[in-house]
Amino acid sequence: MEQLEKLIEHIIKRVNLSLREFKNKEPHFEASLYLENMTRIDDLLKYYAYYGIWSHHPLQFYFNDSNLGGTYFLGRCEVDHSVLYNCDVRGDELKEKGAVFKHGDEEVIIKRPEIIRIRNCFLVKTLVHNYSHWPEEFYLYLIKNTISAPYANIHGSPTDGCFLGAFSTVDLTHVHDCIIGRYAYVQVGDLSHCRVESGRVWIRVPDDNPGGYFEFNYQHDINNLEQYVSFEPGRGVSGKFMELVDSRKVDLQELYEVVDRKHQVPVPETTHVNRYAMLIGRGNQIGENVLISQRAFIENATLGKGANAQENCYIGFSNLKGYNVTAHGASISYSELGERTFVGFNSYLLGKPTQPLLVGEQCIIAPHTIIDLEESVTVPPRHLVWGYIRNARDLEEHSMSLEELAEIETDDEGIKMGAMEFKGSGKLFVNAFQSRIEHILKDNGALYDGTDSTLGHAQKGQEISFNIMQPYREGAEKGIYPTIYIRSSDTEKAVR
Amino acid sequence: MEQLEKLIEHIIKRVNLSLREFKNKEPHFEASLYLENMTRIDDLLKYYAYYGIWSHHPLQFYFNDSNLGGTYFLGRCEVDHSVLYNCDVRGDELKEKGAVFKHGDEEVIIKRPEIIRIRNCFLVKTLVHNYSHWPEEFYLYLIKNTISAPYANIHGSPTDGCFLGAFSTVDLTHVHDCIIGRYAYVQVGDLSHCRVESGRVWIRVPDDNPGGYFEFNYQHDINNLEQYVSFEPGRGVSGKFMELVDSRKVDLQELYEVVDRKHQVPVPETTHVNRYAMLIGRGNQIGENVLISQRAFIENATLGKGANAQENCYIGFSNLKGYNVTAHGASISYSELGERTFVGFNSYLLGKPTQPLLVGEQCIIAPHTIIDLEESVTVPPRHLVWGYIRNARDLEEHSMSLEELAEIETDDEGIKMGAMEFKGSGKLFVNAFQSRIEHILKDNGALYDGTDSTLGHAQKGQEISFNIMQPYREGAEKGIYPTIYIRSSDTEKAVR
Repeated sequence: MEQLEKLIEHIIKRVNLSLREFKNKEPHFEASLYLENMTRIDDLLKYYAYYGIWSHHPLQFYFNDSNLGGTYFLGRCEVDHSVLYNCDVRGDELKEKGAVFKHGDEEVIIKRPEIIRIRNCFLVKTLVHNYSHWPEEFYLYLIKNTISAPYANIHGSPTDGCFLGAFSTVDLTHVHDCIIGRYAYVQVGDLSHCRVESGRVWIRVPDDNPGGYFEFNYQHDINNLEQYVSFEPGRGVSGKFMELVDSRKVDLQELYEVVDRKHQVPVPETTHVNRYAMLIGRGNQIGENVLISQRAFIENATLGKGANAQENCYIGFSNLKGYNVTAHGASISYSELGERTFVGFNSYLLGKPTQPLLVGEQCIIAPHTIIDLEESVTVPPRHLVWGYIRNARDLEEHSMSLEELAEIETDDEGIKMGAMEFKGSGKLFVNAFQSRIEHILKDNGALYDGTDSTLGHAQKGQEISFNIMQPYREGAEKGIYPTIYIRSSDTEKAVR
Repeated sequence: MEQLEKLIEHIIKRVNLSLREFKNKEPHFEASLYLENMTRIDDLLKYYAYYGIWSHHPLQFYFNDSNLGGTYFLGRCEVDHSVLYNCDVRGDELKEKGAVFKHGDEEVIIKRPEIIRIRNCFLVKTLVHNYSHWPEEFYLYLIKNTISAPYANIHGSPTDGCFLGAFSTVDLTHVHDCIIGRYAYVQVGDLSHCRVESGRVWIRVPDDNPGGYFEFNYQHDINNLEQYVSFEPGRGVSGKFMELVDSRKVDLQELYEVVDRKHQVPVPETTHVNRYAMLIGRGNQIGENVLISQRAFIENATLGKGANAQENCYIGFSNLKGYNVTAHGASISYSELGERTFVGFNSYLLGKPTQPLLVGEQCIIAPHTIIDLEESVTVPPRHLVWGYIRNARDLEEHSMSLEELAEIETDDEGIKMGAMEFKGSGKLFVNAFQSRIEHILKDNGALYDGTDSTLGHAQKGQEISFNIMQPYREGAEKGIYPTIYIRSSDTEKAVR
């Protein structure tokens, strides 16, 4: 066990060094406070790690001096001197050699394939999704000297010297020596040496962007946030979000006990249910072209044609009519969602059995939105929804039709609606969201027609096989994994 | 799938080349005849391979361009361009750097650790156990250009350019360009460019050995052998041995479906039941210091203190009183065995529920002995038993007390008893067997007293963890495993 303890100590030191400027500022940062009791070391030994093998993916792994407990790897990943714990590190969108990297009007041809590199990190139940948009280093998807609390999302976002709070998301943002508060969401391109407040939702395209700019800001009430995501040093993360996650734990356990696993319910041929996804209850109805990713949890729900349930999401007692995107970590209960609705990262939608949440078609629920209803609420079609909503009155203050939004064009002052501020081009904002949703649907096979191979890759995932890795169980190396290299035979030949 | 088919084709060509001298001799040898229908390619995709990780073993694996279906690896193994199928490749006795290799009076210090190397092979349900006694190359445990039919044992025996028939055993013998017939057993030091008849049991110490020599020979009746181990080109292996193996298949399947597995019955702390061993029925009683290895199958049996049930053995409805060695592939049914009895490789002991086989203490059942009773038979203590036995009369012709045997000292003519011939020093023969049995008991923890670490390593195996590997499931590489290197972190540092 000594090696694992030393490893954790080393990671804490590295992160403290990177974030030394926050040591003496209120609130004082000290990495060890976030680890103490958050994860007992024994938990790291309970789960095996695994990686996916299929011919449609680049395959190249390197693990050394690490604990990988529960982690799911896909693609090209190198991990050393790290503790990952129930993480998904999916390199399925890594840039290939010969591809074109675009940034604004600039185009660069990729000369060597992109790789995910994780070093001196402690990531707890974190999602790491690749495709870095960082123009300074697009060959390397780097997560370095970073600690993340439970259920943070690192999405297309290299991080370096960071602390990511519980249920926070860094999305398409390169973060360097930053603290991202709990349940904060950033999609801002670049971020360096700053602290993002807990509960802040911050989306911007910088004003030097040739196609125009915008900035969206929302600040959750920090006291109110406590009941959803709370953190106390030494006691770890609690609140309604953790309660929901914990309630699924026992059921998910079953996924890990067997080596191979069949779907529990029949699904159409064009639909892909990941072997590590959970479908529970007798009421699930799954349509064509659906993708249900690993650790997604579907309970007595209807997923219409082309619906996309991403990693760690929960969809229960709800009806999603089709082409819905439920992003990583989002949860939807007692709701009815029209076609092409989008529910952003870590959003929390909770209707009641007799007073459901009804969302019209083509709505966009912004990332990190909490809709926790005390009465039934209906969101009209084509609306953006954000913030915190408990009733119809809240909805009025926290939503706007996409048409109205697209009309907005502000100066530096911007407009305010409650705790929301918006500056710049509303049209650009709406377009950016919509094109991203279309991109997700296409990439995940929602538009698959059985012949055109450019329409989606999800269907191929049926034939993935999973390899299981476990650590030493005793001695000084207890909890540490041996050094493992895995390469496709083709890569191997190229290397020789 | 193309790559796997090409691999099999290549292996067949290599083995045919090595054994070209047997192509035009009766019976004609053609490797493809032994593979056709013996294993359907689909079977190779059904099972995952796995390797054990624990701190008490050297850990170093390399797999490339291979199918490894179902294979269990332990120790230092390199496998490329091979098909292994339900094999155990256990490198747990590999020579370490600094150890002393003895051959007769000569001693050599090992300068680099021994490694198992398997290349261009097709091994079906074969056991490969290491510790080469081959004086010409003791760093390398080589299995090359070799095809083996089901349930062959390769035990401390490098092979090169060989065909091993079903249920054959090469034991402490280096075989080069040889055909070993089905159910033949050889323990002869070195064998080159020859064919060993099916059903021959051949044990010798060569006459240039400074400590003396002996040679034991027994030839099973080849027509009678048909009912136990039969082979027909295109139809594969059949007979009573395969029937027994097949009857256990469904139960064994369960072992592979789960990732981790607890003992099904409580066993003493000093006893080790491998996670891939099977205990079935309510009548099992397992004593202290017992070792039950992977794929061993125990059914309503009593295993007394220090009993050792090796890989692929079957012990059912029997009582083993203690310190019994049941070697690889042996089966024991409706029998009672006194203390310190030894049952050799692939022996077949079958009493009847009301007419059991009774074996006295310290008896040695020679490898490849068939005792298939039509009446109850009692073997007196301290006897060697060999050949084929159905009743008390057969026993008289196929057994001798160890004391009587130790008195024998023949010239080149030797002595005959039925189909058995013996030449040389009976004392040397008895001593060799007895010291090997003591060695096995010691190595496998039968004598473990809880403190002296030189007495056995079996108990350490409790804390082994298993990693699971699977092949590509589709495309040209279907059935092929990616290239995988695994090293302990210590080895890794030494390599850098």
